[in-house]
Amino acid sequence: MSDVENVVIIGSGPAGWTAAIYAARANLNPICYIGVPKQNPAPVLPGGQLMLTTEVENYPGFPEGVTGPDMMDKFQAQAERFGTRIVGEDIEKCDFSQKPFTLTTNKGTEVKAHAVIIATGATANWMGLDNELRLATSGGGVSACAVCDGALPAYRDQPLAVVGGGDTAMEEAHYLTKFASKVSIIHRRDKFRASKTMQQRIFDAPNAEVIWNKVVVDVLGDSMIEGVRLKDTQTGEESTLDVKGLFIAIGHTPATNFLEGSGLDFDDKGYIKLETRNSQTNIDGVFAAGDVADAEYRQAVTAAGMGCQAAIDVERWLGDQGLA
Amino acid sequence: MSDVENVVIIGSGPAGWTAAIYAARANLNPICYIGVPKQNPAPVLPGGQLMLTTEVENYPGFPEGVTGPDMMDKFQAQAERFGTRIVGEDIEKCDFSQKPFTLTTNKGTEVKAHAVIIATGATANWMGLDNELRLATSGGGVSACAVCDGALPAYRDQPLAVVGGGDTAMEEAHYLTKFASKVSIIHRRDKFRASKTMQQRIFDAPNAEVIWNKVVVDVLGDSMIEGVRLKDTQTGEESTLDVKGLFIAIGHTPATNFLEGSGLDFDDKGYIKLETRNSQTNIDGVFAAGDVADAEYRQAVTAAGMGCQAAIDVERWLGDQGLA
Repeated sequence: MSDVENVVIIGSGPAGWTAAIYAARANLNPICYIGVPKQNPAPVLPGGQLMLTTEVENYPGFPEGVTGPDMMDKFQAQAERFGTRIVGEDIEKCDFSQKPFTLTTNKGTEVKAHAVIIATGATANWMGLDNELRLATSGGGVSACAVCDGALPAYRDQPLAVVGGGDTAMEEAHYLTKFASKVSIIHRRDKFRASKTMQQRIFDAPNAEVIWNKVVVDVLGDSMIEGVRLKDTQTGEESTLDVKGLFIAIGHTPATNFLEGSGLDFDDKGYIKLETRNSQTNIDGVFAAGDVADAEYRQAVTAAGMGCQAAIDVERWLGDQGLA
Repeated sequence: MSDVENVVIIGSGPAGWTAAIYAARANLNPICYIGVPKQNPAPVLPGGQLMLTTEVENYPGFPEGVTGPDMMDKFQAQAERFGTRIVGEDIEKCDFSQKPFTLTTNKGTEVKAHAVIIATGATANWMGLDNELRLATSGGGVSACAVCDGALPAYRDQPLAVVGGGDTAMEEAHYLTKFASKVSIIHRRDKFRASKTMQQRIFDAPNAEVIWNKVVVDVLGDSMIEGVRLKDTQTGEESTLDVKGLFIAIGHTPATNFLEGSGLDFDDKGYIKLETRNSQTNIDGVFAAGDVADAEYRQAVTAAGMGCQAAIDVERWLGDQGLA
């Protein structure tokens, strides 16, 4: 019996669990490191960003919707059903310089592996206000994903606000103009970083307005958001804007700290770089799936699809190497 | 009111329905052409290949498994919930030479569209024997997908056979060696088309054997397969091989007939070519998702992920064009 794992899966969102389901069914006896709960500044939990999501309407297969935590329970149960081993530790260091690879956990344990699937996801960037995080994690009308949540009935024909000034903020705002009575884009400067085309979409939308030179200093409302408190970055003057939904679009941060010095290539946004349509990274035997390698789509079903690809790629790769 | 559709979705498998769910939630008011039932030689149904699948164990979210038709019912219900319009006709011709595009149905109706998502899937190639098709469509132990079905309990520690001689056949056979007591690869010639590496995996597997110069002339068994009748291509001699599962791996055919002369680029296997990690084809405004553009993975969850990408790509593209 070898003490080298066929494949270690790091992460436990849709990508990690789907990779585990496929790897386990392929008899690869995978082991999945699901991480430990953190606060950064919103909770970062095993199960990933969906653990903070109340209602998921767009993961196909659940016509009545499903809550994020329920969905992740189902994914995990399915991975366990086929024999995935689960460890509640973080991988803190990856040595990909020698084969088999060596991974080190937060408890100092070393794990040897022929192949690794990195599926650690990304976290939304938040402003870091107490009331923002409270309403974001309780389904109170604060969200970091318009495509996920913008179509929910609570936001229809209501005044909404978006915080940000990059391409993603323009996209989220444009998406919301189709539902909202009005979309206010709150930006701390007097111009956007976004591309001209993306900006134009907002300037052209009859129900979008831009609020320049303002930052959000508080989010108002008890169980549901009722407004935001704004501060002018030039004059310091404060004001209140009534909104029924607030979308934070100031970027995402892929969870790649533990990969520093690993030799992996990242793209210019810090996401793991995949050269082709498969899940191979620049290091032979290291694969990536889900939001940690996807700045574009960031949906549960796209992450799950990538997790499946990674497991199939690993199965073929191990076969090619004569390792499994 | 314009009579040009924002987006027409062609196809109704996991890719088509997921594209519809996302496009509908994005308020694009999509219309989905689900096709009409055909026989070729196995049934080709709206809903796609999963309509012929009894048990799906690996679509994440269903830890107890789900039948293919049930799963497609759920996908369709979810697409309809958000307002997808559904038409039970085939698209027979696509004119992408002028914008808006013109699509023609089997009833001769012309449909104008700004954007098109092609998600018509692929069909497994079958030998075309009556008993093969009967057992394949009734869950009787004949399958065209080892990764989908090979891990099912009925096949564990049983003698299985694979028909084919290309890379896919080697892969399917290698996958099955992990479950089966023995895997026989039945090939009509005395050498494989598969790459040397892939062949070697089979020659090295202790429980794989190759049966050269034989074709399957009948599949034996009433409700479950019990064996295959073989005929030697050199001598004409017939023999019987006892197997509890038969996997047909003689390729797939993407459903692209209706795209002849459309100007779309195809890869060397006849699949729609996607240049990058998104769903854009070589024709601006035409997108593809699922098995029709994927010869590699062909799983429900990968197809669904691609459908989601296509809808998001279309939403962004229409916005960039000022069309929606």
